[in-house]
Amino acid sequence: MQIEFLGTGAGSPGKFRNVSSLALRLLDEINSVWLFDVGEGTQHQILRSTIRPRKIDKIFITHLHGDHIFGLPGLLSSRSFQGGDGPLDIYGPKGIKDYVNVSLRISESRLGYRINFHELPKDTNGSIFEGDKFSVFAAPLDHRITSFGYRVVEHDHPGELMVDKLAQLGIPSGPIYGRLKKGEVVELADGQVIDGKEMIGKPQRGRIVTIIGDTRKTPNAVKLAENADALVHESTFGKGENKLAKSYFHSTNTQAAQIAKKAHVKQLLLNHISARYTGKMAHELEKQAKAIFPNSRVVKDFDIVDVPFIKN
Amino acid sequence: MQIEFLGTGAGSPGKFRNVSSLALRLLDEINSVWLFDVGEGTQHQILRSTIRPRKIDKIFITHLHGDHIFGLPGLLSSRSFQGGDGPLDIYGPKGIKDYVNVSLRISESRLGYRINFHELPKDTNGSIFEGDKFSVFAAPLDHRITSFGYRVVEHDHPGELMVDKLAQLGIPSGPIYGRLKKGEVVELADGQVIDGKEMIGKPQRGRIVTIIGDTRKTPNAVKLAENADALVHESTFGKGENKLAKSYFHSTNTQAAQIAKKAHVKQLLLNHISARYTGKMAHELEKQAKAIFPNSRVVKDFDIVDVPFIKN
Ligand SMILES: [Zn+2]
Ligand SMILES: [Zn+2]
Repeated sequence: MQIEFLGTGAGSPGKFRNVSSLALRLLDEINSVWLFDVGEGTQHQILRSTIRPRKIDKIFITHLHGDHIFGLPGLLSSRSFQGGDGPLDIYGPKGIKDYVNVSLRISESRLGYRINFHELPKDTNGSIFEGDKFSVFAAPLDHRITSFGYRVVEHDHPGELMVDKLAQLGIPSGPIYGRLKKGEVVELADGQVIDGKEMIGKPQRGRIVTIIGDTRKTPNAVKLAENADALVHESTFGKGENKLAKSYFHSTNTQAAQIAKKAHVKQLLLNHISARYTGKMAHELEKQAKAIFPNSRVVKDFDIVDVPFIKN
Repeated sequence: MQIEFLGTGAGSPGKFRNVSSLALRLLDEINSVWLFDVGEGTQHQILRSTIRPRKIDKIFITHLHGDHIFGLPGLLSSRSFQGGDGPLDIYGPKGIKDYVNVSLRISESRLGYRINFHELPKDTNGSIFEGDKFSVFAAPLDHRITSFGYRVVEHDHPGELMVDKLAQLGIPSGPIYGRLKKGEVVELADGQVIDGKEMIGKPQRGRIVTIIGDTRKTPNAVKLAENADALVHESTFGKGENKLAKSYFHSTNTQAAQIAKKAHVKQLLLNHISARYTGKMAHELEKQAKAIFPNSRVVKDFDIVDVPFIKN
């Protein structure tokens, strides 16, 4: 599981940061890539990454501002052109379906796959997707227009069968291993009784990734980020600009760091960086955040951040 | 007057060519830039050029395929964001107004300027704009959907007053020069009679630029290109692929060269190049075209081609 940042800028494309998009790479887990926001030029960024558009099977839109959606029609077309034929789910605020459908209709684009739209009611607060290995939750944030934060939760992995221990006990592999793994109590030919539950290691807690798009500082961000392994949070303004941030419906880097701290996350990744903050100043943004939450990082386009399991 | 190519690729963005857009730079003439087509990422290309979005005051769309329009909403937003406040005219097939308005409405983008839409009826064949220094003509081409070719005609420059000759005749500069320039017959204080028409040099023929977007080989391309100083023509396919080109509603490089020859243009600029044609092969496309029309060139993104006056 990695997060690949495709666009980390705010508002309009700059020379160094494209408008918003990030990819949650779940290739090892479910052979999928999920996109969060698709600003203009996202397909161009993908062209310069290792992501294959056909692997993208879910797209989550935080809100409908142009810098978060204007790349969607082009990406959908290219996905088809490059042979993508599996269905695609699009989640986002009401309006996303109209936007996509009008764009595709007027351009007479025919896609070789089906899109399932999931328009989220304004007051959505809870699960929006339940899969075999992952669930996704959404809740409203506080932006000029409806804006959702997303929490991706990997289901806990059941503990593994301790094959070393079984070998030590002289129990040969075979169908019996399957029964033990299910936690059954098994009697062997020699009368030995083995409790499967004692042969299974600790379950591995699943990982949590929270993506907070454009918003003012808001309690829902803390709820969505609770114990997350990675929190991606917008950081349009810098320390001391709380008033400015509030009036533009955005957050500062230090507000994001306070949320990370309060939610006990493992790492904070700051994006949606204004073009006002070039090289050195972006470093300053990071320093200010670190003073509040040490494991903070200002990300750049094409950064790939690993989200590791926390050892039990 | 220069043509700056912002996207010279076909269909979807590649690593070396973006999707369609070109800028006709009329900065010296009328302090304006006109865009023809706005594929996704055009604003990103402009960022890497010397064009300032606020100078763009007319946009002509050849047809509504995504690779020619998906950059329009983003460009319009950035033009506003960067302080553009002058009105903007958009010309194109029916549907362009809906596309732009729906995109701006759903993204709640507010522009700081007015857009005047000029949706061209399918059978448009003639003048669509008459300015002080330029006129623009449009005619339908032969594509899968309605596609227009455009012919930009600079008005002839009236001949200049031959001040050297007047000085030789001992006629001092003054209000009389203005009357002579208008071609009036003037009697001087010493009884000398001067015919203004004899004191004016030859008029300078205005320049003509023709832009032929996606199309099969079609007679209207020749009509629009008649005597053009520069003909930009799509070249999606290569020599010998006429059947393929026809079935996809496109042209080959040699068909474009035949049109250039038939229309007696000064130079042919081939764009809408498929990603199948990389470096060497693009050169081959150019060679094949040159065999038919010597002044042919396959253009690349960011090429700036001057359109000089032809000396009388
Ligand atoms: Zn935004
Ligand atoms: Zn096309």
